[in-house]
Amino acid sequence: MTGVRRISILGATGSIGRNTLDVVGKHPSLFRAVALACRSDWQGLVPLARRFGPRVAALFDEEAAARAEEALKGTGIKVLGGLGGLLEAASLQEADTVVSSIVGSAGIMPTFAAVEAGKVVALANKEALVAAGRLITREAGRTGASIIPVDSEHSAVFQALMGQDRSAVRRIVLTASGGPFFGKGPEALAGVTPEMALDHPNWKMGPKVTVDSATMMNKGLEVIEARWLFDIPAENICVLVHPQSIVHSMVEFTDGSTLAQMGIADMRIPISFALGFPRRIDLGLEPLDLTALGKLEFYEPDREMFPCLDLAYEALRREGTMPAVLNAANEAAVEAFLEGRLPFGAIPEVVRAVMDTPPVFDGDTLAGILKGDRMVREAARGIISRYGEHP
Amino acid sequence: MTGVRRISILGATGSIGRNTLDVVGKHPSLFRAVALACRSDWQGLVPLARRFGPRVAALFDEEAAARAEEALKGTGIKVLGGLGGLLEAASLQEADTVVSSIVGSAGIMPTFAAVEAGKVVALANKEALVAAGRLITREAGRTGASIIPVDSEHSAVFQALMGQDRSAVRRIVLTASGGPFFGKGPEALAGVTPEMALDHPNWKMGPKVTVDSATMMNKGLEVIEARWLFDIPAENICVLVHPQSIVHSMVEFTDGSTLAQMGIADMRIPISFALGFPRRIDLGLEPLDLTALGKLEFYEPDREMFPCLDLAYEALRREGTMPAVLNAANEAAVEAFLEGRLPFGAIPEVVRAVMDTPPVFDGDTLAGILKGDRMVREAARGIISRYGEHP
Repeated sequence: MTGVRRISILGATGSIGRNTLDVVGKHPSLFRAVALACRSDWQGLVPLARRFGPRVAALFDEEAAARAEEALKGTGIKVLGGLGGLLEAASLQEADTVVSSIVGSAGIMPTFAAVEAGKVVALANKEALVAAGRLITREAGRTGASIIPVDSEHSAVFQALMGQDRSAVRRIVLTASGGPFFGKGPEALAGVTPEMALDHPNWKMGPKVTVDSATMMNKGLEVIEARWLFDIPAENICVLVHPQSIVHSMVEFTDGSTLAQMGIADMRIPISFALGFPRRIDLGLEPLDLTALGKLEFYEPDREMFPCLDLAYEALRREGTMPAVLNAANEAAVEAFLEGRLPFGAIPEVVRAVMDTPPVFDGDTLAGILKGDRMVREAARGIISRYGEHP
Repeated sequence: MTGVRRISILGATGSIGRNTLDVVGKHPSLFRAVALACRSDWQGLVPLARRFGPRVAALFDEEAAARAEEALKGTGIKVLGGLGGLLEAASLQEADTVVSSIVGSAGIMPTFAAVEAGKVVALANKEALVAAGRLITREAGRTGASIIPVDSEHSAVFQALMGQDRSAVRRIVLTASGGPFFGKGPEALAGVTPEMALDHPNWKMGPKVTVDSATMMNKGLEVIEARWLFDIPAENICVLVHPQSIVHSMVEFTDGSTLAQMGIADMRIPISFALGFPRRIDLGLEPLDLTALGKLEFYEPDREMFPCLDLAYEALRREGTMPAVLNAANEAAVEAFLEGRLPFGAIPEVVRAVMDTPPVFDGDTLAGILKGDRMVREAARGIISRYGEHP
């Protein structure tokens, strides 16, 4: 790596954003934060901006932007508001790498903007590739943007593929922790509250991803993401439950070799990999102690108990706009669950219902996909409202 | 891969040789055997030569060569005898790749000849790098020969390093099955017979390697081999017992990532990898089923019960001729054990005793190393004779 890499972080106040800043802060000779952006958490963003001194701070919420501007007066940091501000942070001329970690479909447009600007995109936002995978990978081909995954699973696959004979890949095996309800009977899912779903055994993540992990929709979205990141058909992507979350994923080759990437569950590992690629950064972490772990286990996922996984495979098979439909319907359902308006077990039911009579929209343009996203949410809300109040 | 790769196999009648021929036979469009060589097993070699039709068959034993010549009359296969024949097979002009799988220090000279001739050397013989690592790697640097390991452990490390940031390697972790006596108490070693030592739980190998596996000297030799193959100091090479023999070895990087190569215990995987490198060959093997295995376990090796491991680390630390001393003393001791002249537990004692008062020889030339090898064996035999008859 020559010189300092200049990093723009979209979603700076979230879990990925803060871990990214931890890596950046510990390696000032390698990285500098030139833009920090988030949706609305100005009280979270202001101290980060003071500490890391980016040229730009951007907040999607205009009112939050005004408050941040007030708080950062005199620092020389330029505060931008609204979608325009977010997109400017995503395509900032002086940024080498854009960390795209705004959660949900709100991350689609900024991710596209970074790809359009030909940046190295460290991609943590899943939904962009799920909803607009064809569009984004085509645009990356046009602009020369490279997409380096930050998700631990896709980072693992990316690492395992480096320098290998790509024509000899037989399968990608994504591992799943199984979430907080792995191994419990179906009756355990009946009374799941947001608190229970948010109690993930291995990873500390934001609420949307944690609920997706509990339904295994997270793994389904990752299957779709993997299809676009690695240009591999759905039938060659499989999922194994691995409760220890040490093997982050694997690639199986035609000669019977499997390459796996392992590590402790610390997002700074895949983040620093994406920031430093192709160099690795010494993070000063304790080495993985496999003897202390005792054992690594692997199980087939329970597809009946976690129907979201098969819904994602179905969406990928049906192609076109269906992955975007799956994604938006799931997002609406998870939101409703977190707000107590939908039982946990109804999340796949809502997604299933929307996929059965999906809104029709143009999946080949960004505008069409964003419009479709709104249409699907509306359709999902109609279905959700029928569930009535949930304690 | 363009065209057919022409392969010379040294040790064609052994376990690695036969597995190599299995791969070659199944992929006639990729590989052709142009030379088959062995020490003395002419009855094993003749049918292989008839089937694979190499240009050259070589036998180290002159009498065996004469019998093979008689048996192969009219086939057009040129039969060579003696050391000269072996070295000709090792440096055959038309061979692209030389599989060096003669067991023990008998493999040192042919391996050196193949390296000297600038071949791609698929290296299964451990002893060449253990006894003459500096000499051989220096020669490879001079001639441009590439050494691709065939040992499952080193093949795993080789695969895990491909395309990676070599400056960020923190440790190499060689896995060991633990052999047939893993987890048993020290008293279990007292009455070990050759039959017991030869009953390896996971791998089918020749007798020398199987006994080395039971004493864990095999892993010690592999540590020394890894030092030369990957140019990494001994203190950054460690050993973990992994009874399932699925993870064949690992590389740990400074960012906390570990890359591991896995597969079923089938030597055709690393062999085909070395033959086809950098392409992988579809072997039509059943995919690795991690769910059927249940679990992967890792343990620290018991260094008191298996002192050979520390003897190897000591030899590597003492450098110079000491690894060659370790190797030759061990070979003499294993031979004596297999012939019932030495108890199992005395193998490390013999090695220890020779290392305490090692013969002095020149470790910087091939002639010096071969002479040293004889001197060490003689010294070892003297020590062994004091143990008297062993039932």
